[in-house]
Amino acid sequence: MVLKGLLLVVSGPSGAGKGTVCRELLENNQDIYLSVSATTRQPRAGEKHGVNYWFKSKEEFEHLLAEDQFLEHAKVYDNYYGTPRNEVEKALDMGQNVILEIDIQGALQVKEKMPQSVLVFIVPPSLHELKTRLINRGTDSVAEIEKRLKCVAEEIKHISKYGYIVINNTVTEAVEKVKAILTAEKCRPYYYDFGEYV
Amino acid sequence: MVLKGLLLVVSGPSGAGKGTVCRELLENNQDIYLSVSATTRQPRAGEKHGVNYWFKSKEEFEHLLAEDQFLEHAKVYDNYYGTPRNEVEKALDMGQNVILEIDIQGALQVKEKMPQSVLVFIVPPSLHELKTRLINRGTDSVAEIEKRLKCVAEEIKHISKYGYIVINNTVTEAVEKVKAILTAEKCRPYYYDFGEYV
Repeated sequence: MVLKGLLLVVSGPSGAGKGTVCRELLENNQDIYLSVSATTRQPRAGEKHGVNYWFKSKEEFEHLLAEDQFLEHAKVYDNYYGTPRNEVEKALDMGQNVILEIDIQGALQVKEKMPQSVLVFIVPPSLHELKTRLINRGTDSVAEIEKRLKCVAEEIKHISKYGYIVINNTVTEAVEKVKAILTAEKCRPYYYDFGEYV
Repeated sequence: MVLKGLLLVVSGPSGAGKGTVCRELLENNQDIYLSVSATTRQPRAGEKHGVNYWFKSKEEFEHLLAEDQFLEHAKVYDNYYGTPRNEVEKALDMGQNVILEIDIQGALQVKEKMPQSVLVFIVPPSLHELKTRLINRGTDSVAEIEKRLKCVAEEIKHISKYGYIVINNTVTEAVEKVKAILTAEKCRPYYYDFGEYV
């Protein structure tokens, strides 16, 4: 089967800048589409159904789950979060590239269901730099920051399962690298039809 | 082990333009080095030892072969051709990227010995276009061209073993794609040392 669109899964520790990198990619590339996750948590002020999340009841979510309608999902406290398979597959079939910005556990679930998805792990230049960024962001307590840093060291152990690592020295450089990864991955044999040659 | 340089293996049917693509890459990128093959055939007028080929006696070649000193080799008529392992490994260790421009059989041998080498197959936009290019080049007889075209159809069957396919619509576009492949492949986890994080 000849594939059309490419599924790019972007993960990385909080503070690595993956959100900024994804936003830059989306703003400057018409052929990239951000997948909207589904959740059972309540919408916060200003959040829109189909934009920030697909808001679903617990019953709906569990029904879709039973039908294997998620590429990945997780239960955080009492709420479900997941990536709807249908939406992603439709976009890929139309030749659009799709970005998912999800955590490492979710990314590895996606890879299992769609082996040709491309996993990119965005890392800060160093743990020291990450600490500085988290402190400067000012949204986390010191205890929370220490917990995050420990968590990063834990995540790094799984890094060899990732296709690509992008060190976020500067956003421009990181975006260029992710774009190169996209260009390269679209040169994989399964994007070509060589019917004419055979 | 953390890798430094990358081994790029470029193959493709004659007439696909792989020579031109490699030359462009070498001229504009100081960190890419073209590996010089060894051969037992006689030097032609103007050919220089260490530039066009490492010219070796049959005994020397067979001795190196017995010591597994070639990343790939072939015997064409009565002459040996091969890629010296030592030279490539030395350049990679110094952090240089190395290009090999070899045939598909050689490329697959290299991949077996160095699994992290990157195989790129350059193809012309179509069989029709390839035929036109070979006719315009004027170096091959009609029978020779027909034989080559059959050979391409045969090679295309192995294309899924290649990491990447680059369609040579224009040299500039093809070179950009190979450069993106280089950039992407240098983002593989085995080029990173995360000692600091662990």
